[in-house]
Amino acid sequence: MEIRPLDQGLAPAGDRHETDVAIIGAGPAGLFAVFQCGMLGMRCHVIDSLADIGGQCTALYPEKPLYDIPGLPEASGRQLIEQLALQAAPFAPALHMSQQVVSLTRSDSGGWSLASDAGTQIFARAVIIAGGVGAFAPKRPPLAGIDAYEGQAEGGGVHYLVRDIAAYTGKRVVVAGGGDSAVDWTLALTDVAASVYLVHRRDKFRAAPESLNRLRQQAAAGRLELVVPGQLKGVEGQDRTLTSVVIDQRPAGGERAIAADAVLAFYGLAQNIGPIAEWGLDLEGHRICVEPTTAATNLAGVFAIGDIAAYPNKRKLIVTGFSEAAFAAHAAFDAVFPGKALHFEYSTTKGLPTP
Amino acid sequence: MEIRPLDQGLAPAGDRHETDVAIIGAGPAGLFAVFQCGMLGMRCHVIDSLADIGGQCTALYPEKPLYDIPGLPEASGRQLIEQLALQAAPFAPALHMSQQVVSLTRSDSGGWSLASDAGTQIFARAVIIAGGVGAFAPKRPPLAGIDAYEGQAEGGGVHYLVRDIAAYTGKRVVVAGGGDSAVDWTLALTDVAASVYLVHRRDKFRAAPESLNRLRQQAAAGRLELVVPGQLKGVEGQDRTLTSVVIDQRPAGGERAIAADAVLAFYGLAQNIGPIAEWGLDLEGHRICVEPTTAATNLAGVFAIGDIAAYPNKRKLIVTGFSEAAFAAHAAFDAVFPGKALHFEYSTTKGLPTP
Repeated sequence: MEIRPLDQGLAPAGDRHETDVAIIGAGPAGLFAVFQCGMLGMRCHVIDSLADIGGQCTALYPEKPLYDIPGLPEASGRQLIEQLALQAAPFAPALHMSQQVVSLTRSDSGGWSLASDAGTQIFARAVIIAGGVGAFAPKRPPLAGIDAYEGQAEGGGVHYLVRDIAAYTGKRVVVAGGGDSAVDWTLALTDVAASVYLVHRRDKFRAAPESLNRLRQQAAAGRLELVVPGQLKGVEGQDRTLTSVVIDQRPAGGERAIAADAVLAFYGLAQNIGPIAEWGLDLEGHRICVEPTTAATNLAGVFAIGDIAAYPNKRKLIVTGFSEAAFAAHAAFDAVFPGKALHFEYSTTKGLPTP
Repeated sequence: MEIRPLDQGLAPAGDRHETDVAIIGAGPAGLFAVFQCGMLGMRCHVIDSLADIGGQCTALYPEKPLYDIPGLPEASGRQLIEQLALQAAPFAPALHMSQQVVSLTRSDSGGWSLASDAGTQIFARAVIIAGGVGAFAPKRPPLAGIDAYEGQAEGGGVHYLVRDIAAYTGKRVVVAGGGDSAVDWTLALTDVAASVYLVHRRDKFRAAPESLNRLRQQAAAGRLELVVPGQLKGVEGQDRTLTSVVIDQRPAGGERAIAADAVLAFYGLAQNIGPIAEWGLDLEGHRICVEPTTAATNLAGVFAIGDIAAYPNKRKLIVTGFSEAAFAAHAAFDAVFPGKALHFEYSTTKGLPTP
């Protein structure tokens, strides 16, 4: 499923763009904000850390039925997002996926400059943050000094996903986790790595029966070692080069160091508002304080909607996120078109733009 | 289209009822309030002045497409209402149609007592007013003393709709208006009435060409008289019995009295918040002042949502009415179940009640 992209298609990373409204987050509130802004004549660029639109709806419950979307007595998360994408399509938003906005700074000429971790830069007259409960990011093991081994080239140090398994050829690898990802990558690594260890806190894995059978067979054949029960206790090395991993096997065993070039930790995804916390926004916990009927934050021209927005009596419902999108679009109009009167017409009167 | 009614079906007028929440208005906001209250375990009775659910959606634009309902890229007013009715159905609201709530008084035992002009009485622990821009009512000619002739049995006095045309058999009838209703009833009355006059301010009618042809033919044949241009100027009679109608035909003619038993005025529908203005609610113009994130009015346990609710930056959008319904339901919970903790579960987790 795709929103009809701008003429040049899905926007390539690293470019510079200028737009009316930058929307951070392509979940249901962000997508409906595209529609509401479009109805008021504003063009939007949308940035999201995930590869696909839909936020929690597609990432967390694509197949589960939702019953509380008004006018949709039953819809899956995926169906709702497909409908919202269809609704936003006439306004041809530009989509910047698989990247996180790392900075938001006030522009000299008014408006805001956004930069993503993929090098994309967007200048926008208004910003709507529809960030849900934050960007999805892998859960990191809470180990002292782990950051020294993160962010290195694949095959060495600590990683949370595999892009190129060939990078692990001949390497000593410790995999941590008990789910599908941990089990499946462990099996795949036995074909290329010098040694493979799978560390999990108990001798039980959440994976397909066929994968589990193969895991036991390969362990019995000595092609991998199951370190269970076990927990990552520390990472050791020098000059940012990992040399070994310490595993805590108490009470059954003691502590054990395993020589390793790389650690792959598959502990699932967590959501974190991350860089958003550093933009000077008034926060309440991990949420952004807004005025409930404009979605205005303490920064002029910056609005927040959906689960990330906080105000008294806030309900974390998709329907309130939709309403907040409407409020934000109307309020953003003044930032995008200063001094221009808003001549609002109902959709049933005005219709939609034709391509 | 019908919401699945309570066991006893569509509630008969004149009964006494007790419920958790009384919802005044069966438009989109009121119907979604049934759903939201239902999800929180509250039963609802709904009262509306129209015969059908849907409010403005079905009364004013049943066939026009709406584009701004999130998740419904295009839906007619009627389709939206059908979907909302389907969504409310599992909670089996009781519907009290074709009647207007005329009084809202605080009950001695806490909660509120509502009385309708059809004699229905409802005791409710909380009240949600989703009254749109007021009850639909026929526009009345601004004639001195007209109220003395209203509310009588059909066939005599002033009426704004026809329920039983046989009541006009042998009567002298003056019809006023220039639209379909005026033209069609004039034609129908020629079959039963002793005399039929059609009064309109100009010699041009908004009606089907075939009806207009028949109107001219019947007038030429002397079976009815077109009094054009003409305007109702007064009603005359004694002891509440209508005897004649005064028509102003200036400048072309002068004033003229037409002997008549009955007047049928078809001037269209107007909306008026009517009795709501007398319940002690804080008003802003014809709307009710509320706190935007609870929909609370100045009366404890009484909430207002949708177009009738007023607060700074209010947008008269259906989507904001939906959100307000969610806010009101959560806030009403405390009035319905004082001291009970609200254990909210998402619809995707909790599911819907099974009959």
